[in-house]
Amino acid sequence: MPVPPRLRPARLLRAVDLAGTGIFALQGGATAAAAGLDVFGVLVIAFVTAVGGGIVRDVLLGATPPAVFRDVAYPLTAFGGGLVVVAIFRLVQAIPPSVLLPLDAAALALFAVVGAAKAVDHRTELATGGSLRMSWLLAALLGTVSAVGGGVMRDLLLGGVPLILRSDVYAVAALAGAAVTAVGLRTGRSRALVLAAGALVCFVIRMLALWQGWNLPRVAP
Amino acid sequence: MPVPPRLRPARLLRAVDLAGTGIFALQGGATAAAAGLDVFGVLVIAFVTAVGGGIVRDVLLGATPPAVFRDVAYPLTAFGGGLVVVAIFRLVQAIPPSVLLPLDAAALALFAVVGAAKAVDHRTELATGGSLRMSWLLAALLGTVSAVGGGVMRDLLLGGVPLILRSDVYAVAALAGAAVTAVGLRTGRSRALVLAAGALVCFVIRMLALWQGWNLPRVAP
Amino acid sequence: MPVPPRLRPARLLRAVDLAGTGIFALQGGATAAAAGLDVFGVLVIAFVTAVGGGIVRDVLLGATPPAVFRDVAYPLTAFGGGLVVVAIFRLVQAIPPSVLLPLDAAALALFAVVGAAKAVDHRTELATGGSLRMSWLLAALLGTVSAVGGGVMRDLLLGGVPLILRSDVYAVAALAGAAVTAVGLRTGRSRALVLAAGALVCFVIRMLALWQGWNLPRVAP
Repeated sequence: MPVPPRLRPARLLRAVDLAGTGIFALQGGATAAAAGLDVFGVLVIAFVTAVGGGIVRDVLLGATPPAVFRDVAYPLTAFGGGLVVVAIFRLVQAIPPSVLLPLDAAALALFAVVGAAKAVDHRTELATGGSLRMSWLLAALLGTVSAVGGGVMRDLLLGGVPLILRSDVYAVAALAGAAVTAVGLRTGRSRALVLAAGALVCFVIRMLALWQGWNLPRVAP
Repeated sequence: MPVPPRLRPARLLRAVDLAGTGIFALQGGATAAAAGLDVFGVLVIAFVTAVGGGIVRDVLLGATPPAVFRDVAYPLTAFGGGLVVVAIFRLVQAIPPSVLLPLDAAALALFAVVGAAKAVDHRTELATGGSLRMSWLLAALLGTVSAVGGGVMRDLLLGGVPLILRSDVYAVAALAGAAVTAVGLRTGRSRALVLAAGALVCFVIRMLALWQGWNLPRVAP
Repeated sequence: MPVPPRLRPARLLRAVDLAGTGIFALQGGATAAAAGLDVFGVLVIAFVTAVGGGIVRDVLLGATPPAVFRDVAYPLTAFGGGLVVVAIFRLVQAIPPSVLLPLDAAALALFAVVGAAKAVDHRTELATGGSLRMSWLLAALLGTVSAVGGGVMRDLLLGGVPLILRSDVYAVAALAGAAVTAVGLRTGRSRALVLAAGALVCFVIRMLALWQGWNLPRVAP
């Protein structure tokens, strides 16, 4: 019996990916609004936060135009998140961290896992014939870039040092989840299982870091 | 009777595109000089302001190397604008806003329209055969990136928050012109007419915003 | 008699390229540590400083995924440099400028020359058949971007105006070396000779500038 269309893995993955896009757009838009930006600035920052990481990933893979520019659902979701901030900023601002932070960790986990999977799947056609696959280490790095790249752009555009360079275990959680995904897929395990395990690793590390106040040590004394 | 070469649309478009490049180079170079940069820094900022947006557009389209790296007239024009600033900074600084701002608005309009047209024309070859065209919304976004991307890079390199995120209706004017262009071309209207209409829409909105002191409202109270 | 594998030019070039990568990683990591970043931040900045310029060059050439994502030795070297900083920051910080600055100038020279050579070698396949080669001026610009791009990203991420826009003759030395390389290769001289001459020009200009305290004049009085 065929799987009905709406339950096929690609559709499910896209739906979850869009959910992550919406969460990051809300979060980026709220940061921009709090920084005093106008309506247009809030929409731009929401968009960049939500899709910037994926754009960098696709440009680095050579998969251009990036997925965001091929499927209009992504920009609509990103701008939709920004418009929600514009319309009901007070309500968005009132969402307690106990709701926001797990949502953000979930979006981070998802983007890390999806990004790593895209990098593992990518094959570069060589001029000599044949194709080249990326090492799992580099696929894990690209997954991390997918997950944190939008936030880095948000912070640069708002004039600050990117939070991930200063704050608690965030990109490290993404890297761990992306690495589990890349290694798992390369060793031929079940795709659904690997993606779920990678996302869980990222989410759990991030939530533990928040709960326990983990911080990496500074290098200079 | 054939159109003489110098009047052909592509040549005309390139000439106007180069004029926009020169204006943005002058404007970027003057900003850099006023910020205390040395000769080299002024040339770099002039170059980045003039061609940065087009480079990002072409990288996102996958049209690499970007047009700027294929036609040496673009970098020569951009560096030429920077050298004019170096040579006669006082004269450039003395140009009154009543001349500079309409010139800048004209360059903005041109870049938005040309960028949107390039995005509309672009076809992505698919591995499955056939090709994909970009939705008009995404083509309009890429046109806007072409128009404002160089200025964003200028502001980031000079250490500030990009002006377009804080100031009056600027990127919105570019977006309006790019959207008119993308929709017009997709619905099959006369190319010359569509480009002229798109540029006019952008230019008029920008000049009205300057004249009337339009500003978008802030989101946070 | 065949040249033994370890002495072949491509292997030699890669070895020297990796040496430059390591130097820039050490230098970037030490800057990040001194700025108070944590272990992860130091690794990120070391990585970006070491490979950022090459990534931008390859993206602009359309040679994606960039070389850094094809050969795992590059990221390992870059992260290795960062780990050295983490492990023995005090020792790294104690290296006197009389050692560090010539090493940095050597890495700059190497990256400028390798980057320009890659740009000169690159051919863009045209849809009409045939291929396009890049003008020597644009190849020289791409070589300069290779050499200084990582440092620009380091400074932007650490929240400052890029040093090359403010300080003494640095990018100009890279541009001179890259231009010598591009012109030399285009006029068909011996490859080894051209690369050596380009690197020497860059290194000597940079060291003379440091020794004599050369600075370019500011444009604004």
